[in-house]
Amino acid sequence: MIQQKEIKLPAFRRGYHLVTDKIEEELADIPDFPQAGLLHILVQHTSAGITLNENVDPSVRRDFESILNIMVPENNKVYTHTSEGGDDMPAHIKTSVIGAELTIPITDGKLNLGTWQGIYLCEFRDHGGPRKLFLTVYS
Amino acid sequence: MIQQKEIKLPAFRRGYHLVTDKIEEELADIPDFPQAGLLHILVQHTSAGITLNENVDPSVRRDFESILNIMVPENNKVYTHTSEGGDDMPAHIKTSVIGAELTIPITDGKLNLGTWQGIYLCEFRDHGGPRKLFLTVYS
Amino acid sequence: MIQQKEIKLPAFRRGYHLVTDKIEEELADIPDFPQAGLLHILVQHTSAGITLNENVDPSVRRDFESILNIMVPENNKVYTHTSEGGDDMPAHIKTSVIGAELTIPITDGKLNLGTWQGIYLCEFRDHGGPRKLFLTVYS
Repeated sequence: MIQQKEIKLPAFRRGYHLVTDKIEEELADIPDFPQAGLLHILVQHTSAGITLNENVDPSVRRDFESILNIMVPENNKVYTHTSEGGDDMPAHIKTSVIGAELTIPITDGKLNLGTWQGIYLCEFRDHGGPRKLFLTVYS
Repeated sequence: MIQQKEIKLPAFRRGYHLVTDKIEEELADIPDFPQAGLLHILVQHTSAGITLNENVDPSVRRDFESILNIMVPENNKVYTHTSEGGDDMPAHIKTSVIGAELTIPITDGKLNLGTWQGIYLCEFRDHGGPRKLFLTVYS
Repeated sequence: MIQQKEIKLPAFRRGYHLVTDKIEEELADIPDFPQAGLLHILVQHTSAGITLNENVDPSVRRDFESILNIMVPENNKVYTHTSEGGDDMPAHIKTSVIGAELTIPITDGKLNLGTWQGIYLCEFRDHGGPRKLFLTVYS
């Protein structure tokens, strides 16, 4: 069975944000949430990503921002796609390096993540606004 | 239901190429294309990738080539896998950084991408030749 | 049909390790392994990754270690998450750059990888210990 739902996350500041709870809240009204299956999440944007990482210490999420900004710096002279601001083209690159979609197993009626894993919404723009995610539950 | 199809993309020059239309053409002859489901795409190579990113401006795809070449430079002295040319080992690294497989939701009988999202075939070799992709539609 | 199985891989040294055979052995006792379907693999950790890459030459896996250590160096002064050792925060970053989950098609009752593709378990910690993977076979 396939069940799908579009959701909207509120505008986040640039950075990495734990959204496991928000995703689980949105899944709560899926009518036939399965005991076993998979959840697919697509971020329907080209300047925001989604990934699994450490779910407790905010310093991890802060360091993600610092290191990705070093790996994909703004204002490099090679950029030609500059009309939407200095944060735009690096945001496109980061989206493909981190990824914009994710599949997570469902077991015993719950997301089956590791003990320390949480879902990060990665906002790569300075002012990205609300972000649309598309959820597919298959079982 | 699982429906599968192997396809071959023509040889692309090194760089990032929009292939959404080509993928949709290949899906057109899947006999029972679903109203709701998921499409999985695997690039069956280790020196080409697939990702979702901006689907209009060619400058984005050009800048991808420039920045990834800075992130994963050729001819670094640490490389030991050099027998297949200076572009070979960086192509392997880029494949795992960008990824070689992708899942996309299907809704109302169509790929359900965001407004600005397209599928990029990322050719990391100078002369990669035609590339085999394996499509799985599940519903 | 959804079939799931948790497996444990033995402790690997820091680096990139071919585990295709180990995964296939673990799949051998899935009771109704399908002719056509998909396998999803989740690494249930935040400092180890999984990816597809070259399945023959050990020099490729050695160069992966060298290049990723240059891309995400240890002991950068910007790190604030340092209490678990200099290898910890870079391991978190690498996990999201390479990815912690993977989907692979199943065709004719076997993993349908390209000729040169193998599954890498990427151990980013100096002493990561055994790693738990969660397998979902859907058909």
